[in-house]
Amino acid sequence: MIITFLTDFGASEAYVGVMKGVALGICPGATLVDITHAVPAQDVRAGALLLPEYVPFFPPASVHVAVVDPGVGSARRGLAVEVTIGGASRFLVGPDNGLFWPLLARADAFSAVELAEPRFWLPRVSSTFHGRDVFTPVAAHLARGVALAELGPPATGLVQLQLPVTRREDGAIHGEIIVVDHFGNCISNIRAEELRELGDPGQLHVWVAGRSLGPIRRTFADVAPGAPLALISSSGRVEVALRDGDIARGLGIGLGAEVVVAAVGSRSSRDPAMPEVAGS
Amino acid sequence: MIITFLTDFGASEAYVGVMKGVALGICPGATLVDITHAVPAQDVRAGALLLPEYVPFFPPASVHVAVVDPGVGSARRGLAVEVTIGGASRFLVGPDNGLFWPLLARADAFSAVELAEPRFWLPRVSSTFHGRDVFTPVAAHLARGVALAELGPPATGLVQLQLPVTRREDGAIHGEIIVVDHFGNCISNIRAEELRELGDPGQLHVWVAGRSLGPIRRTFADVAPGAPLALISSSGRVEVALRDGDIARGLGIGLGAEVVVAAVGSRSSRDPAMPEVAGS
Amino acid sequence: MIITFLTDFGASEAYVGVMKGVALGICPGATLVDITHAVPAQDVRAGALLLPEYVPFFPPASVHVAVVDPGVGSARRGLAVEVTIGGASRFLVGPDNGLFWPLLARADAFSAVELAEPRFWLPRVSSTFHGRDVFTPVAAHLARGVALAELGPPATGLVQLQLPVTRREDGAIHGEIIVVDHFGNCISNIRAEELRELGDPGQLHVWVAGRSLGPIRRTFADVAPGAPLALISSSGRVEVALRDGDIARGLGIGLGAEVVVAAVGSRSSRDPAMPEVAGS
Repeated sequence: MIITFLTDFGASEAYVGVMKGVALGICPGATLVDITHAVPAQDVRAGALLLPEYVPFFPPASVHVAVVDPGVGSARRGLAVEVTIGGASRFLVGPDNGLFWPLLARADAFSAVELAEPRFWLPRVSSTFHGRDVFTPVAAHLARGVALAELGPPATGLVQLQLPVTRREDGAIHGEIIVVDHFGNCISNIRAEELRELGDPGQLHVWVAGRSLGPIRRTFADVAPGAPLALISSSGRVEVALRDGDIARGLGIGLGAEVVVAAVGSRSSRDPAMPEVAGS
Repeated sequence: MIITFLTDFGASEAYVGVMKGVALGICPGATLVDITHAVPAQDVRAGALLLPEYVPFFPPASVHVAVVDPGVGSARRGLAVEVTIGGASRFLVGPDNGLFWPLLARADAFSAVELAEPRFWLPRVSSTFHGRDVFTPVAAHLARGVALAELGPPATGLVQLQLPVTRREDGAIHGEIIVVDHFGNCISNIRAEELRELGDPGQLHVWVAGRSLGPIRRTFADVAPGAPLALISSSGRVEVALRDGDIARGLGIGLGAEVVVAAVGSRSSRDPAMPEVAGS
Repeated sequence: MIITFLTDFGASEAYVGVMKGVALGICPGATLVDITHAVPAQDVRAGALLLPEYVPFFPPASVHVAVVDPGVGSARRGLAVEVTIGGASRFLVGPDNGLFWPLLARADAFSAVELAEPRFWLPRVSSTFHGRDVFTPVAAHLARGVALAELGPPATGLVQLQLPVTRREDGAIHGEIIVVDHFGNCISNIRAEELRELGDPGQLHVWVAGRSLGPIRRTFADVAPGAPLALISSSGRVEVALRDGDIARGLGIGLGAEVVVAAVGSRSSRDPAMPEVAGS
């Protein structure tokens, strides 16, 4: 019985602690895991991008509470979702505001219900803290073995969160930085799988914000300390970084910065010009 | 067997981690829960205000270590307390400096002992880290089932921490902001129960720092994005906030800012003048 | 089955959470403990100084993952180490870059293996996140009872991390500040045991950055609020602090500041001159 928590509640109050007390009251002995509580306040997209990073690595039947919920208390629905990834299912509980969408969009399958059965909530539900009063109690009941269908009627037409899409033009893939992490490493929306379309991986070259980073490296140590590089992130995306440094600060790279990957002739691969494309 | 931890130790050293090692050595298999370690350094009042937010939501017999302890190593007493809330008891362990007082003052009942039996402490007790050497070992022994009375003699005359009180004047309740949370929401010392004295809740109007916020709303979504509002916090107090924003920064509201709630005629309820009171 | 985690990953992404998912997949029911994830990015020394603060306080057979790993993906070895402290053994898992050295150098005994058996890792190993793909899986297998020797061949010649040494000159011990903690307290490399060489502890006097702090106090409350003092830290080292304050900010003391301890006659102990030494 595993319950994880991802929120934008910060670490300086008792908001997260009280949710754990509620969970343990309903599901004694549950293993409680903090993912992070430092999602920027009310930034649904930032939270949504994190779910695919951890949910698939948790064991089958684990329950994942995620609360970034600017619409708390309004008409937005609460959801519980069973999602199948790699042949095994996990459960998600939280608001219907797109927070789960990037994970669900790439899952094998999922089914969702709208939270509508107050017998699985705290007896008194506040209008500002559904994390404590609704989502965590529901998660704890799921962890105890309550069936998804008991929690409410099927929910369809979930709110979708569209991430920026990549463009394919003239043999190049154009994307953008969507995550800047704790180390200042910048991760793009270009997935490793997409690169196969460009041919020989050894011939690929990367640019960020117009600056050439050379070929895709295997790891940080493949360049000199302080040098910029491109590599495949641990989440399977094209990432740009400085070895032993912070590329976001060092080169002024931020969210939305353009990333381009293209195949180049090996002869000119040291520092080729960025592909010219319409509108760039 | 649940043990929670609230401290002002921060998250950047091993101070919290070592307490957990000590707890697990004495009470193997205990469920350990972090509440927060970001209480401002040595701010007993800030910590004391958090305890009522989480302790009542934890299951019976849970043990709660709280360490904000500027007097460590001095003559201040160490305490273990059994507190009854809603018909069930929990245990508290920490310094006798007022940290527990706001919770105890509103509890159904409590009994306290002074920590005086070194056989329940680590063999070597430092003079600067009783969290590790005294409080956590005692908590772990309580979690294992040691009786409160074994830990030391009854303690009476506990140090009291007085929070600012509200004033009732001419049909208005005057209070002040006592907590600014991670979102910048500002929570006052005026409890929802006190408002009943003012009559029809639908006729109540709120001011903060002289600024009119209109009636008490049910939730953030009841006003336009960016607009200020007053509502009842998840802890049952009058709270002022900006929808999707940070009222502390946005309007310069901070600790000690005056909050006034008064009944107004429905006719003039849109923007009535703040009640005039002696000395305000 | 206890597994602890110390990293420089910060708390704002899912990096730590995903490691816990991996651990629970391999070792269901393990007790997972965060030590800290706020080690300054890639600061192996800062991480290394923390391990002796917590590992000895954990129960026998506990497993400690520590990842501060600027060389991830390079030729640096991964290690699992069995270390004996106080007659009981614990396990360490992480990179061979000196991170374990200060703990190992003072242990009763240890034996290390190089991680070389991919059947104890995740099926797909990234080149940038061995915390998730190698170290945590190995730790979880150790927690389940896999023998150290199964993980790979014996590793000798571990990378050593040399901390600044203390100097003994003319009856004084000279050291330096090696840790500034969350409270601004500054902890030196001078151990309490070394002070015995100087004779009567009651006659010892401390200076930091040339400033006299008087005798070694027992605890903060032994001086007036706001006053500077020297005492023995909870980790057994000479520490300098301000009572109820932050000496690092207040007096501008930082890493590397010189600390001197010397015996003085009781007659002149109030404010003696700092010992003159060659080269100081």
